[in-house]
Amino acid sequence: MNEPTTDSWVEGATGSPFDVDNLPYGVFSLPGEEPRVGVRIGDHVLDLSPVAASEMLDVHQAFQQPTLNALMAEGRAVRQSLRSWLTGLLTDETERDLVEPHLVPLADVELHLPVAVGDYVDFYASLEHATNVGRIFRPDAEALLPNWRHLPVGYHGRGGTVVASGTEIVRPCGQRKAPGDDAPTYGPSTRLDIEAELGFVVGTGTALGDRVGVDDFADHVFGVVGLNDWSARDIQAWEYVPLGPFLGKSFGTSVSHWVTPLEALDAAWTDLPGQDPEPLPYLAPDRARGLDIDVEVVLNGEVVSRPPYASMYWSPAQMLAHLTVNGASVRPGDLFASGTISGAEREQRGSFLELSWGGQEPFGDGRTFLEDGDEVVLRYTAPGTRGGRIALGEVSGRIAPART
Amino acid sequence: MNEPTTDSWVEGATGSPFDVDNLPYGVFSLPGEEPRVGVRIGDHVLDLSPVAASEMLDVHQAFQQPTLNALMAEGRAVRQSLRSWLTGLLTDETERDLVEPHLVPLADVELHLPVAVGDYVDFYASLEHATNVGRIFRPDAEALLPNWRHLPVGYHGRGGTVVASGTEIVRPCGQRKAPGDDAPTYGPSTRLDIEAELGFVVGTGTALGDRVGVDDFADHVFGVVGLNDWSARDIQAWEYVPLGPFLGKSFGTSVSHWVTPLEALDAAWTDLPGQDPEPLPYLAPDRARGLDIDVEVVLNGEVVSRPPYASMYWSPAQMLAHLTVNGASVRPGDLFASGTISGAEREQRGSFLELSWGGQEPFGDGRTFLEDGDEVVLRYTAPGTRGGRIALGEVSGRIAPART
Repeated sequence: MNEPTTDSWVEGATGSPFDVDNLPYGVFSLPGEEPRVGVRIGDHVLDLSPVAASEMLDVHQAFQQPTLNALMAEGRAVRQSLRSWLTGLLTDETERDLVEPHLVPLADVELHLPVAVGDYVDFYASLEHATNVGRIFRPDAEALLPNWRHLPVGYHGRGGTVVASGTEIVRPCGQRKAPGDDAPTYGPSTRLDIEAELGFVVGTGTALGDRVGVDDFADHVFGVVGLNDWSARDIQAWEYVPLGPFLGKSFGTSVSHWVTPLEALDAAWTDLPGQDPEPLPYLAPDRARGLDIDVEVVLNGEVVSRPPYASMYWSPAQMLAHLTVNGASVRPGDLFASGTISGAEREQRGSFLELSWGGQEPFGDGRTFLEDGDEVVLRYTAPGTRGGRIALGEVSGRIAPART
Repeated sequence: MNEPTTDSWVEGATGSPFDVDNLPYGVFSLPGEEPRVGVRIGDHVLDLSPVAASEMLDVHQAFQQPTLNALMAEGRAVRQSLRSWLTGLLTDETERDLVEPHLVPLADVELHLPVAVGDYVDFYASLEHATNVGRIFRPDAEALLPNWRHLPVGYHGRGGTVVASGTEIVRPCGQRKAPGDDAPTYGPSTRLDIEAELGFVVGTGTALGDRVGVDDFADHVFGVVGLNDWSARDIQAWEYVPLGPFLGKSFGTSVSHWVTPLEALDAAWTDLPGQDPEPLPYLAPDRARGLDIDVEVVLNGEVVSRPPYASMYWSPAQMLAHLTVNGASVRPGDLFASGTISGAEREQRGSFLELSWGGQEPFGDGRTFLEDGDEVVLRYTAPGTRGGRIALGEVSGRIAPART
């Protein structure tokens, strides 16, 4: 990619986390108008459809849609040429008269769920998280199960309850049974939690029976979202054997408004920490690479954890190769997530379950799990191609009381 | 419902499994034309859109769609009044001139996947199946896990790989590890299996945070499909701890072309075999009812099993109430399935895993798991409201060799 060497003429963009080397896509609306596709530059949204139409680009119809799906389905080459075109528009002073009328201040728009989510798969790709959870949920057994180092463990979540950042999360009710209780009871979850994750959005699909090779990641993934996989640990602990998490996760999964295209992360790729044993050939890329993305978990305005995505054991390309190795097809809008990002240190853990060690070791101001009214914001930054750091879309959510 | 007391004028319908008390919906196309909605009567498909348009019914636009989703979203009252209208058309000789030009012989049409599937949830509602699988997969532990009698255990499957009856199933590849092996290997599944199930299709959705009460099933479910949840037991056994089945199931799930509307099953409701302990109140309906549906598993033309749906422990209404008790929303097109239907007798087991007891006790002509070229057909019948038996949509699939 030709990354911009000149500054943007858009006021406030240069040097900001949404500089011209970022350019995430989202879906916005103005009061009384239909949602459509925009790109973020500084603190503005560029309304793409009229600009593309005036330049007679075929893709302008995809920009009129209320989700990014049609745009994403255009594929990698279109995504890359759009990026070059946008960079030109936003750095070339001679384009200013054309473009500036279609720049809308962020404060004036409503942002929406950017993607019509198809299937949602959640992985479990952090060695530290899997080890911590194993120790907490199964204290009498080996923390890491025998398959964990051989394949990226994952499961299907509920695509229909993926919601946009800012959506209120109602405390779920359900069955839970404490170890000492004779029988389960019904009621609001008392161990409501977050999972700080990174999500990957599929742009180019496959046919049933095909596979995505471990080196073909960028041909199929459009970009990255911030993701909070809200979890009710008491419901989960009771229900999850033998078929996995279900209602403990399906009441809401929040994603960022902005989808950062893969090309904005060109400077963020980094070597994986290392894999032992060596993965089977279908999971062994030419070079196994993770992403150097820093995450902040912010609870009611205070940073309570800084999970490092670079510490993840399994790479995004390995996750997608595994997901499709059995011939399962993917579609534009499919979403797969990393699983909780936890580093080796306590203050790098990506869930309250781990930060409070199953509720036994309160953290921060005496916190174990989420209380009604709590607001959690996940923030993400990565190295940009201009030397600074770009911001990925943040994910926020506030806990509303249970509806009993 | 007013069920028809007079015979249909459509030749061959009366007394057939697709008599006027059945009337399942599907999506069909004629050569060179777009798929649209039809209803089956005898060995014909009634092309609904032109008939509805000529009678100025608003719903005719839903009949022009390539899936049943828009029709299903119209809700229970519309579904019921359509049924009365159709019954009148098909039994009243004076309607014959209007209707007959739009009856197309089944042999002339192509049938399609009837529903754009949103989320797909698979339950595990047969006591006999869960007990058998527990014994086979975990011989050293209690067969039934502690939660099983307290809640309908379920998990999310892959909505994007739900395919129409008749779609070829390619033998999946993946990782598997035999108990004696040191490390997993990659290759085609050697323990490919079926699961004979019943699927329930949601018509009327809910908002995030709402619940479907256990007595409100018929307000939200449109109808029933036959369903084969193809399973690769070797892949599943290696991957499924701790997050549940993933690639062992996600390569394909076949559903029938026909969706039987709930009203066609009015005579099929029956008491559940009994639940002990009594379920928590949110799972306790005024009257817990299952469905008296008989299933046949046909392998290469021979019936190898006859699973009785009436033996299921958890009811469909309990499954939906559980699925939504945490506030998870449902959408038109969401699909949830019963899990494998297995009765108490060996010849009533709904999977090859059980029929061959984990491959140790060959059945039929020495069979354990599926071989390339095998064709499996699941057939379903239920009591109809006219005294005979109606047929639900059958589900077929043939195994194609792995693509290595």
